[in-house]
Amino acid sequence: MTDIKQIILEKYFERDDGMPEPNQFKITTCKFDENQKIEKDHIMIKLEYVSVDPYLRARMNSKKTFVDPFKLNEPINSGCVAKVLKSTSDRFKEGDHVSGYFDWKEIQIVKVTNQILIADPNIAPFTAYLGICGMPGVTSYYGTVLIGKPKKGETFVINAAAGAVGTIAGQIAKVHGCRVVGICGSDEKANSLVNDFHFDAGINYHSPTYAEDLKKACPKGIDIFYENVGGQVSDPILLLLNVHARVACCGAISVYNKKVSDDIGQRAQYIVFEKRITMQGFLVFDYSDDDYNNAFLHLSKWLKEGKIIEKHVMNNGFDQIIPSFIKIFDSKNNKNVGKVIIKL
Amino acid sequence: MTDIKQIILEKYFERDDGMPEPNQFKITTCKFDENQKIEKDHIMIKLEYVSVDPYLRARMNSKKTFVDPFKLNEPINSGCVAKVLKSTSDRFKEGDHVSGYFDWKEIQIVKVTNQILIADPNIAPFTAYLGICGMPGVTSYYGTVLIGKPKKGETFVINAAAGAVGTIAGQIAKVHGCRVVGICGSDEKANSLVNDFHFDAGINYHSPTYAEDLKKACPKGIDIFYENVGGQVSDPILLLLNVHARVACCGAISVYNKKVSDDIGQRAQYIVFEKRITMQGFLVFDYSDDDYNNAFLHLSKWLKEGKIIEKHVMNNGFDQIIPSFIKIFDSKNNKNVGKVIIKL
Repeated sequence: MTDIKQIILEKYFERDDGMPEPNQFKITTCKFDENQKIEKDHIMIKLEYVSVDPYLRARMNSKKTFVDPFKLNEPINSGCVAKVLKSTSDRFKEGDHVSGYFDWKEIQIVKVTNQILIADPNIAPFTAYLGICGMPGVTSYYGTVLIGKPKKGETFVINAAAGAVGTIAGQIAKVHGCRVVGICGSDEKANSLVNDFHFDAGINYHSPTYAEDLKKACPKGIDIFYENVGGQVSDPILLLLNVHARVACCGAISVYNKKVSDDIGQRAQYIVFEKRITMQGFLVFDYSDDDYNNAFLHLSKWLKEGKIIEKHVMNNGFDQIIPSFIKIFDSKNNKNVGKVIIKL
Repeated sequence: MTDIKQIILEKYFERDDGMPEPNQFKITTCKFDENQKIEKDHIMIKLEYVSVDPYLRARMNSKKTFVDPFKLNEPINSGCVAKVLKSTSDRFKEGDHVSGYFDWKEIQIVKVTNQILIADPNIAPFTAYLGICGMPGVTSYYGTVLIGKPKKGETFVINAAAGAVGTIAGQIAKVHGCRVVGICGSDEKANSLVNDFHFDAGINYHSPTYAEDLKKACPKGIDIFYENVGGQVSDPILLLLNVHARVACCGAISVYNKKVSDDIGQRAQYIVFEKRITMQGFLVFDYSDDDYNNAFLHLSKWLKEGKIIEKHVMNNGFDQIIPSFIKIFDSKNNKNVGKVIIKL
């Protein structure tokens, strides 16, 4: 028997409760028998890399929103890369690495499904399976390519631009020849978008001249708006949209910590009408396995060719999972650029 | 030489100027020679029916919005039915009736284009060429069918429901088996929607219990929202949208008389994301002639079969054009149900 750690959700925090806090989680220790026999088509895995993502906040409400709530007193679950310790599946063998949605629990046994994929270091580094070649990358692909329908010379604007999805989606738009403008929470991040990710402009929305800065960065208006944030950061963006613009609503992190009916600001409908815009919400989980595989193929190719670079923030140790998660909501004070990953 | 009347736009009124007022227009009299020769492919026509529509408000701004501004001191122009007095076109002969966008001028000579169509009383009454079988009908068809993609049993909500587009779009949704809820500006109109147009519910948004009334009328949420109004009337509608709902943004009459950046209320993006909604703006003029003809065929068939009824408000006389136009913006005090037409 081994002592292993896991993180459980001890109490829900509703939208009105605001930002998540450490006391809503609990790290517990339990016994695990590594010598136990496992059922057919199961694997025993050891977590190596854990992803923390904004959407997890919504799973910590007691009520269903765009995702189902976690169960109380059970381990939280997110995208992870793990090493296979034992396998009764034809698809994986001991020593393989796999990516999938796993519990925040050091060692666990899971049933093999189509959502568990091999993580092959010859195709992409393990960390990329949580970023460019994983859920954030595929999400970025759907929003940028399938909804955004980018054309050469168009202006593409994205907020939360220094985040996992932002850095990838902006680079995908660059691959398609767009002018890419990224909006983020600090001057350092804005500089990184331009210098590291080759965006055409990076804008700090905390600046008192934010709306003017944005206008200057988009002299031809905005053709594609990739929406991750919502709230007042997005109000000036709507006013710059061009005729027949596309808006891909991928998330609205500014609203996750409050009631929807309290989300008051620029209404969209008149603008959507006047400019004959298509505004479309989407969720990575709504697409088919074929769509996923197609996106993966493009993304891993662009990564290999160096057309998209991978950059992540790596925190070390199981105890860093919760602080890393909480920090992603504090865009002003965190210094994260790219995917946040915890290496165990 | 005959004395004929025309209506010119004497001064622009910008969004900030609020509601249109009579002194912004001028009725003038000019001489017209009915015996003059006309160039090839032209027709001399005498207006018989004039349509006043909300979108005309936007043509009275000095700046382009979704339509071009009218020129100052030139006649205003809208959908009309006219009688052909003389023709040098192969398509029309003396005595025919035609529908098209004509000047507010009793007699005029116009060049024949594809946008001028025969108005055949054997297919539909002349008034229907300004309603069900004209621009409002085709607009309703595009929004309800092409964007709304109605399925049997879905809930369809429309505002400005007692207007020209509202009464038609709601009936088209009924033809497709939807539960149809119409929102309008008085109890009398709400009753008419149910009794005359067979909507499932009519709701007066001036009621202090508007949001609750709407919720009760939509026990299964809203699958299709046909948006004509915007502003606070629409805020509670957004909160009731279902997963994968469609929003057809056809207009936003509440915003035509104010600055877009002053249109503050429920933001849409979080909702569009959470429910994976498609919100699409459209303009009847963006579609092809084929789309128009296809819509016309369906609409004239439904009219003949009695599946859609025509109802309009008829005001008599050239001098009624301006008061009729101004009144359409005062939804509380006008008693209009259906298309407003002025018969000369």
